[in-house]
Amino acid sequence: MSEAALSSRRSRGGGGAARRAERTAVSIETARYIERNIPNFEVLTEEALEIIEANAETVLAEVGVNFVQNPAALERWRQAGADVQGERVRIPRGLARQLCATAPSRIIQHARNPERTVEIGGKSLVLAPVYGPPFVRDMEGGRRYATMEDFRKFVKLGYMSKWLHHSGGTVCEPTDIPVNKRHLDMLLAHMTLSDKPFMGSVTEPSRAQDSVDMCNILFGEEFVQNNTVMTSLINVNSPMTFDDVMMGSLEIYAANNQACILSPFIVGGAMAPVSVAGTLTQVLAEVLAGIAYSQLVRPGAPMIFGAFVTSIDMNSGAPTFGTPEAAHITYGAGQLARRMGLPFRSSGSFNGSKLPDAQAAYETANSLNVGLLAGVNFMLHSCGWLEGGLVSSFEKFVMDADQLGTLHHLARGVQVDEEAQAMDAIREVGPGGHYLGCAHTQANFKSAFWRSDLFDYKPFETWADEGERDTMVLANARVHKLLADYQQPPLDPEIAEALAAYVAKRKAEMPDAFS
Amino acid sequence: MSEAALSSRRSRGGGGAARRAERTAVSIETARYIERNIPNFEVLTEEALEIIEANAETVLAEVGVNFVQNPAALERWRQAGADVQGERVRIPRGLARQLCATAPSRIIQHARNPERTVEIGGKSLVLAPVYGPPFVRDMEGGRRYATMEDFRKFVKLGYMSKWLHHSGGTVCEPTDIPVNKRHLDMLLAHMTLSDKPFMGSVTEPSRAQDSVDMCNILFGEEFVQNNTVMTSLINVNSPMTFDDVMMGSLEIYAANNQACILSPFIVGGAMAPVSVAGTLTQVLAEVLAGIAYSQLVRPGAPMIFGAFVTSIDMNSGAPTFGTPEAAHITYGAGQLARRMGLPFRSSGSFNGSKLPDAQAAYETANSLNVGLLAGVNFMLHSCGWLEGGLVSSFEKFVMDADQLGTLHHLARGVQVDEEAQAMDAIREVGPGGHYLGCAHTQANFKSAFWRSDLFDYKPFETWADEGERDTMVLANARVHKLLADYQQPPLDPEIAEALAAYVAKRKAEMPDAFS
Repeated sequence: MSEAALSSRRSRGGGGAARRAERTAVSIETARYIERNIPNFEVLTEEALEIIEANAETVLAEVGVNFVQNPAALERWRQAGADVQGERVRIPRGLARQLCATAPSRIIQHARNPERTVEIGGKSLVLAPVYGPPFVRDMEGGRRYATMEDFRKFVKLGYMSKWLHHSGGTVCEPTDIPVNKRHLDMLLAHMTLSDKPFMGSVTEPSRAQDSVDMCNILFGEEFVQNNTVMTSLINVNSPMTFDDVMMGSLEIYAANNQACILSPFIVGGAMAPVSVAGTLTQVLAEVLAGIAYSQLVRPGAPMIFGAFVTSIDMNSGAPTFGTPEAAHITYGAGQLARRMGLPFRSSGSFNGSKLPDAQAAYETANSLNVGLLAGVNFMLHSCGWLEGGLVSSFEKFVMDADQLGTLHHLARGVQVDEEAQAMDAIREVGPGGHYLGCAHTQANFKSAFWRSDLFDYKPFETWADEGERDTMVLANARVHKLLADYQQPPLDPEIAEALAAYVAKRKAEMPDAFS
Repeated sequence: MSEAALSSRRSRGGGGAARRAERTAVSIETARYIERNIPNFEVLTEEALEIIEANAETVLAEVGVNFVQNPAALERWRQAGADVQGERVRIPRGLARQLCATAPSRIIQHARNPERTVEIGGKSLVLAPVYGPPFVRDMEGGRRYATMEDFRKFVKLGYMSKWLHHSGGTVCEPTDIPVNKRHLDMLLAHMTLSDKPFMGSVTEPSRAQDSVDMCNILFGEEFVQNNTVMTSLINVNSPMTFDDVMMGSLEIYAANNQACILSPFIVGGAMAPVSVAGTLTQVLAEVLAGIAYSQLVRPGAPMIFGAFVTSIDMNSGAPTFGTPEAAHITYGAGQLARRMGLPFRSSGSFNGSKLPDAQAAYETANSLNVGLLAGVNFMLHSCGWLEGGLVSSFEKFVMDADQLGTLHHLARGVQVDEEAQAMDAIREVGPGGHYLGCAHTQANFKSAFWRSDLFDYKPFETWADEGERDTMVLANARVHKLLADYQQPPLDPEIAEALAAYVAKRKAEMPDAFS
């Protein structure tokens, strides 16, 4: 089934690609996902890469990995030729890498609006928002537990953000909804309040199945079986432990041809060695084992090489972000992923600050720039992250989302065609002249320079007269403006009703659980 | 004359390398200048580089450059084979590049404390503070005209900043001192309040001569003639105009073997074409002409390929910083400089914000990271810049100076020796274990991760109890702490007296001038 068939499926339900097209005329502009026209930055030499790859094979063969409470997984590994003792799986040299070869190098993740469909792999970079925080923060309410209403606001902000390609997953954890039911409300929000691609639930295999079932309603079952419509986040319990919940979810997604990010969750010095080369070795071993396993479940299942990396402040024990060591690991992991021919996920708007202040911005900018140059294909947490991932910040969401524009422009690279060479302009203006009025400037200035939609570019006096607003205050105003301007993207009413009915039915089947 | 000879000259004056060594025991740690162990990032293809280089030669040959009110320069150019018409100098293809070949590829700039001597060129990166703002800002006093007392505070902060290698030049413009005398007080402050290398005055040729004369006192005349003890900033009046004041200063520095940065001052769309390739063409043409001219004054004069680049916000007319286009130009200029075999100056803590807030930090981090990866050898403005260069900010100075530590650690690259591979640690810890207590972590954690001396890494509750301080408030406290802890580095009293006497004599010779 193709993209055209997807459109026809969608129009079947309630009539009207034409009507939809008309109504989407008010929708917000979204930039196409980034396709890099610049090189990647590579810190590891060929020799270093070979050492790390050889060491990772040694780790898999001699130390092994644990698949916890998962007899089916152990049986799959046994049949594939691994040495299984209890829950420990030792994988002969080369086997994991060989198994990984069936995973595709590029993944097309379809959105319900085909214009929002993204490609993950190669030179692409897809930007998705913050994932997972139990708290939210804004200027009015300070820091507080997140609710479903907060969640919906973040989905709306994501939909309204030009430089954001993806609606994400758990943009914050809606703690006011029972833990066994909140995934249903979260999915419904992504499916109905946005038309960008999204992520599925991974907190129980049954919730992964709910995610697939709801996608069957949204996209049609046949389309889902033949195309990727979700990218979900599977964390390794580092070091080298694959728990039954995450693997159970991965099994469901892989069996249904849905993409997963296989992502070691590394706090350097705690869950991995304190050195960059040691951490990369462990990351590679874990990714090799996890993605190899996905291919045992279904050869060809779409998978992404993930690396979530932070280091630890040895004084306070706090995780630290935007650091040089995280940069080295991200650059190196990108090289390792490319040598496996796999899409790569890393980086984000990482920072450890309590407020969307200068610390938050330095650390975030460091991390975003590394993500672009490291060849990241899928950047989760690309906006909104605060306080080491404990907080989704409304103001920081729009601040970061604005900065993501710089990555788009950087990725364009440098044009050197005749127009860009501007020799006529240089001749026209000459020594001591001025370019503002010349023909070349007039013809090109609108698209020449990236500009922020948020930052203050006004003269000092104007800025002072307007109350000396800092970036947080400007961002707060932008949050309110975007939410006020928000208009829901159209969705076939029959599909919307079927989704709501599915959520109601599933909620009725389960007692509430809060832990 | 060698570094050892310099030491002997200094001890000759008043006795005591030994005594000095004893007294410097209290001095503040300064990191050695950066030597990169990572590759440069290159955005331009070989083909693009060749196009830009050919176009720059065309500009020099067909459009030419102006040397204003400088008959001696015009005569030098005529004798070198250029076509001189009025003040317009057209340089035959290849001539400028050929003249530039006598400029050295590396410059050793000596500090009066030999431990602070820096090398500019090759894989090095030397970090110097903000240069030029007429205003200062801090939390207590807001934004106000800078005074000589502010200037001295910035020199002290620079001396106390571990990651700053260079004391800089006009760290702010001391507007309370007559314009024709302030260079004397500024030089005296750098020479006596710090022992890091510094810059000379360029605002009048006579002030450049004062700078040389004062260095003769500080370093000894013979040493100055045979070694570089100042790096000074010569801006081109872009497009393609070389004024008599800047060229007069350059002539004095070149004749005395002192280093100059030949730096086009580019606001893209105003002083250069609105396109990256066009701007790079003009930058290269200007640098070729300026450095070639320095070699006509004295073959072998130490020169640095400079590029100060900002783009313009076409809505407001304001210069913008930390933008993708500035990044492209900086990366490209680095490539062009390396192909000329010249040290490269660019980048800095650039931002357009009015406050040291998130905007300031995003833009600054973007720019600092570009500087490292672009192969910059001398980074002026690496800390303290605010409001598009109108303001030297005390808080931002220490915020940026702290961030400069990340560049040092990034530049180290990735070690892959046996210790770094950490295979013993991975074996020891195994699946499901914890690295905090393992032998490898214990042996390596102190040096493994960069940590900020400024940012907040505390738990949320502690941070809340301590008053929810943002980065600006933390930085303000750090400014006060560093100034309170400051101790003047020792200087031979005879030299100190001779410098003070020179300043007094020169001030007495001139009436005050304030414009």
